[in-house]
Amino acid sequence: MTDTNCSVGIVAPQDAVFDVPLPLASGAVLPSYQLRFETYGALNAGRSNAILICHALSGHHHAAGRHHPDDKAAGWWDNMIGPGKPIDTDRFFVVAINNLGGCHGSTGPSSVNPATGQPWGSAFPVVTVADWVTSQTRLADRLGIERWAAVIGGSLGGMQALHWSIAYPQRVAHALVIASAPKLSAQNIAFNDVARQAILTDPEFHGGDFYAQGAVPRRGLRLARMLGHITYLSDDGMGEKFGRMLRSGEYRFGYDVEFEIESYLRYQGDKFSDYFDANTYLLMTKALDYFDPAKEHGGDLAAALRQASASFLVASFTSDWRFAPERSRETVKALIAAGKRVSYAEIESAHGHDAFLMTDPPYVDLMRAYLSRVAEEANA
Amino acid sequence: MTDTNCSVGIVAPQDAVFDVPLPLASGAVLPSYQLRFETYGALNAGRSNAILICHALSGHHHAAGRHHPDDKAAGWWDNMIGPGKPIDTDRFFVVAINNLGGCHGSTGPSSVNPATGQPWGSAFPVVTVADWVTSQTRLADRLGIERWAAVIGGSLGGMQALHWSIAYPQRVAHALVIASAPKLSAQNIAFNDVARQAILTDPEFHGGDFYAQGAVPRRGLRLARMLGHITYLSDDGMGEKFGRMLRSGEYRFGYDVEFEIESYLRYQGDKFSDYFDANTYLLMTKALDYFDPAKEHGGDLAAALRQASASFLVASFTSDWRFAPERSRETVKALIAAGKRVSYAEIESAHGHDAFLMTDPPYVDLMRAYLSRVAEEANA
Repeated sequence: MTDTNCSVGIVAPQDAVFDVPLPLASGAVLPSYQLRFETYGALNAGRSNAILICHALSGHHHAAGRHHPDDKAAGWWDNMIGPGKPIDTDRFFVVAINNLGGCHGSTGPSSVNPATGQPWGSAFPVVTVADWVTSQTRLADRLGIERWAAVIGGSLGGMQALHWSIAYPQRVAHALVIASAPKLSAQNIAFNDVARQAILTDPEFHGGDFYAQGAVPRRGLRLARMLGHITYLSDDGMGEKFGRMLRSGEYRFGYDVEFEIESYLRYQGDKFSDYFDANTYLLMTKALDYFDPAKEHGGDLAAALRQASASFLVASFTSDWRFAPERSRETVKALIAAGKRVSYAEIESAHGHDAFLMTDPPYVDLMRAYLSRVAEEANA
Repeated sequence: MTDTNCSVGIVAPQDAVFDVPLPLASGAVLPSYQLRFETYGALNAGRSNAILICHALSGHHHAAGRHHPDDKAAGWWDNMIGPGKPIDTDRFFVVAINNLGGCHGSTGPSSVNPATGQPWGSAFPVVTVADWVTSQTRLADRLGIERWAAVIGGSLGGMQALHWSIAYPQRVAHALVIASAPKLSAQNIAFNDVARQAILTDPEFHGGDFYAQGAVPRRGLRLARMLGHITYLSDDGMGEKFGRMLRSGEYRFGYDVEFEIESYLRYQGDKFSDYFDANTYLLMTKALDYFDPAKEHGGDLAAALRQASASFLVASFTSDWRFAPERSRETVKALIAAGKRVSYAEIESAHGHDAFLMTDPPYVDLMRAYLSRVAEEANA
């Protein structure tokens, strides 16, 4: 198990502003943008020990440590990043970023559009995984990192790692693609669409320009998050944790919270709707829907991956039904067909999709072993 | 395959009014109620050939035939009910009912509360599967049916069939429990709660008393139905039917309908929100959540089933993940442990939960074979 005392300590986010226009996959051009990021550990003299952490749907740049000594919670991947942890900050220089379109400091729909002096809102362009990776190369350039020792991500983050390996083969030594998929299934898209419709049809959404109205489409965001949480947990895991437990021990014959699982979901939804931006949620789900590197190659994923030169670690979790092991195996098969170096692990876990954020010992051991090898290479 | 020309023809719904108060599981008492139902075929002299069809979440009494010659669609189970069909109206007297709390003619939240002259709305009591079965016994009495040759239902309908066998063992010769479960899992309840929250938080819901406001919580109902549809189809089936197909052939980088699966779901949601009652939807999902015949027996389902005297057919579908085969096997194991006669079939199908409404040949053959035996017994 990870020793949670090995913390990177107090950290501070940084901002990088890019004034060169960024052309996007949609055809739109972002005139300028800011990326918020954090770094942990030190870049070595050869600049060869840098790791990029790509976040998933609701993640951000604050991946490890605390901003203030009295912060209750550490960064979202603090159990994996730190001195002596699998992503070892004694050996790596770790960069964690908030993606373009986000709501945690990087330029996004809630940021001020310099052209109008008002929040971007509905005018903020749809961004893709490819756009994120392009925006991230500029940050790498700024930090003087020509080649990442590893790009690491779970879920939507894994898609970014995969795209890095395809679009910038010389800049990625290792890609760690965890609990991810080479493209969404119809069912994945369906869940995203219900979540989006919940937000888009919320009367407080105002077509995306709710900021000016002093409104927040809280109901829609709350439903989207509740639904999301069902897909993050496994059926069995949910059954073990909540089962049919009743809050008051008996049926109440009404619509107030009654089963423990209802209490959990509503709490998660309420909390999320307090801080997350509705437009960012929409953008993130669209980036998921669009991701399909095989598309430009007539559906042939191996052809898409042929140009990659990274080594790959692909990992999946047995109880993950959002991106089931079969989906990771598609990636692995294509990598093998393309003649790439790939390690694959299907990890026994009851934590469903969320397992990539957890510390199931076989997962931690796998990450530690793989990254230890990466560290040796990087610091050789 | 079922010959769809063998129709029961033009049918007309009937109403039965019950003026004797109905005590409900919640402790509330319904002073009087009406049940709308249809019948197909003829009751034999011995009154021994009657079959009760119990509907699922959004079903009703119109299970077969047409109300008007120009009706585009026949009743919801017309592929299973008719002369020469598995539920053979040449041999059975078939009764299909709209459940209490429904919105298709039986007393429900949208009916007028005689005490106020206004729609019941939020004052309509929560009803359970047990309440439905009690209300159905009165209809059976009215029709002079002491014992059903079979009680048949899929999904929530299967729960009613199971409850009939437990609560009125002498009144059920055969119980056909299809694509059902002996109780909902935490995940099942979670999906129901998201659907309910979509309705309850719709500003047009007005706490359930939207009728008086001339409002309809269409957005909430639409989301509930979209979400429901995801759970009715299998991941693979959805993939085969819709995959990642785009309506216009390319990405549009916006939030209008883009993937075919989005188009399908939104259409289903729109259609449903045009005719279904929001309060009925809430009631139906609560009846699902509460169903748990083992609860009164310390969680021992076999103990709950011990008093049953029916023969059972339990059937599940391989790709059904709403009520997966494992859930049906729980019922079968308990029936065996309780020493009951039970046949079980796990039917290969790509249609997911919806398979119980479809005509996969092994399913039709199974129903035909089983019910043919029931008909021989009933008409002996």
